[in-house]
Amino acid sequence: MSTDPALVTDREQAVTEEVLASFEATPDPRLREVMHSLVRHLHAFARDIRLSEHEWEIAIEFLTRAGHITDDRRQEFILLSDVLGLSMLTVAINEPSAPGATESTVFGPFFVDTAPEIPLGGDIARGAAGIPCYVSGRVRSVTGEPIVGARIEVWEADADGFYDVQYPDGRSAGRGWLRSGENGEYRFWSVLPAPYPIPHDGPVGDLLAATDRGPMRPAHLHFMVTAPDFRSLITHIFVAGDPYLDCDAVFGVKDNLVVEAVRHTDTAAPDGSHPGGAWTSITFDLVLATHDGR
Amino acid sequence: MSTDPALVTDREQAVTEEVLASFEATPDPRLREVMHSLVRHLHAFARDIRLSEHEWEIAIEFLTRAGHITDDRRQEFILLSDVLGLSMLTVAINEPSAPGATESTVFGPFFVDTAPEIPLGGDIARGAAGIPCYVSGRVRSVTGEPIVGARIEVWEADADGFYDVQYPDGRSAGRGWLRSGENGEYRFWSVLPAPYPIPHDGPVGDLLAATDRGPMRPAHLHFMVTAPDFRSLITHIFVAGDPYLDCDAVFGVKDNLVVEAVRHTDTAAPDGSHPGGAWTSITFDLVLATHDGR
Repeated sequence: MSTDPALVTDREQAVTEEVLASFEATPDPRLREVMHSLVRHLHAFARDIRLSEHEWEIAIEFLTRAGHITDDRRQEFILLSDVLGLSMLTVAINEPSAPGATESTVFGPFFVDTAPEIPLGGDIARGAAGIPCYVSGRVRSVTGEPIVGARIEVWEADADGFYDVQYPDGRSAGRGWLRSGENGEYRFWSVLPAPYPIPHDGPVGDLLAATDRGPMRPAHLHFMVTAPDFRSLITHIFVAGDPYLDCDAVFGVKDNLVVEAVRHTDTAAPDGSHPGGAWTSITFDLVLATHDGR
Repeated sequence: MSTDPALVTDREQAVTEEVLASFEATPDPRLREVMHSLVRHLHAFARDIRLSEHEWEIAIEFLTRAGHITDDRRQEFILLSDVLGLSMLTVAINEPSAPGATESTVFGPFFVDTAPEIPLGGDIARGAAGIPCYVSGRVRSVTGEPIVGARIEVWEADADGFYDVQYPDGRSAGRGWLRSGENGEYRFWSVLPAPYPIPHDGPVGDLLAATDRGPMRPAHLHFMVTAPDFRSLITHIFVAGDPYLDCDAVFGVKDNLVVEAVRHTDTAAPDGSHPGGAWTSITFDLVLATHDGR
């Protein structure tokens, strides 16, 4: 007695219809739309792959492990969203198409909202190891107007590829925020970032290993820039020449976010200081779109 | 300057294509198929609803809370799968279409694999509160052959709607396993189960409240039946007349799993015992399909 494919489809469709109906009374229309779409796509996925009960159990265990490894300093669900490209897709969906505006990329799991304020020209490295890197440019609109007093949050991994939240001693380093000056200019010292693996000792790392994908991200410096009347910009700048630019584990690279880190030796820095030994500089303008995408 | 819809679509499609390509080298063909389908459906969902960055954050927080409330005795991810109908869909996808076989339903989060063995005719209630209920029937094949020595796991909520794993004192009650006898017969004492809410003090409960759905499940008794040469059966029997049969929070009800609980007073039970006062009885055959669906 073999399975009748039509009966199977009817039985499966009946489940989906019953679940969709259960969300019909959702008071908020947006939530109703989201839940209906989620049910349709989730069920279509399970049907398309003929999800087995054992595979369902593996998925439950995977999510459980992701939940248990997540704490104040580790966010496995963001990593999961990142390696599935959902984070970059969300960026793409929400990005204003304002020609000339700096493009966005993933937020990542390493932002901390209690970073210290740094004066214009100050040092966000604050003890993070690495070659000094002087980063400067202007915050401006797509029409070239300077944006004064924009809040610029910066965070980065050190030369060993670690963010401060991954340090065992809990100290803060490699992050800070500053405000653009009266001509929209900004400048700060940091260290040249290094490529690093995303945390891969958890279930997301197991997924990358099982799918023969690497955990590496090319070297980058994170920015979040906010100013009244402008859309917040969340982005990175990547360092040209990095070996992982073509295989970022989280799909964050965009061509026009890749910048040259100019290497210097024994010369004075633009702020008149003498770093003493090798140092680098990056010039990059942060161009914000308005809320209506201009 | 408005957004060019074609450009937006290209940008979004480019992300999806890059992520699909990243899974191309997955050594296991089944895992590759699953990941490709997951990426396609997950991305289609995000695009269809135009997922905002704030909604993405809400989703990350939801999963994080689900992970943190999950422990050895609470499984929020199974609850989530249940209320989204994914659990019942998985049952439907995997169910053999063997006419006459007992239908399957959701496993649920309350099974414990260390329940005690109970002799044929013994009491699985073991202190769980409720009206005594004598459950009996035969374990057999769809062709009517008795299945001797089948392992029957039974678990249930008590009259207050709680499983033992929800008791604060950690004791075991309302669960046990027994083997069918030499003619495939089985019988045990339990208590009449009561309707109960699924645990709704976590994120899944918040989702139900926000979507105006109730957390209640109609009264039921869980079974898992295993025997060599037969497909394992995971099912419930539901009690006819229950007010929640039409709005089970987890979509588990099937018409032919609804049985009458016959009420008795001051009569001798089928095993010759005198429960003393009100008691109930349920008769239900457990009909297993073979591995090839017969």
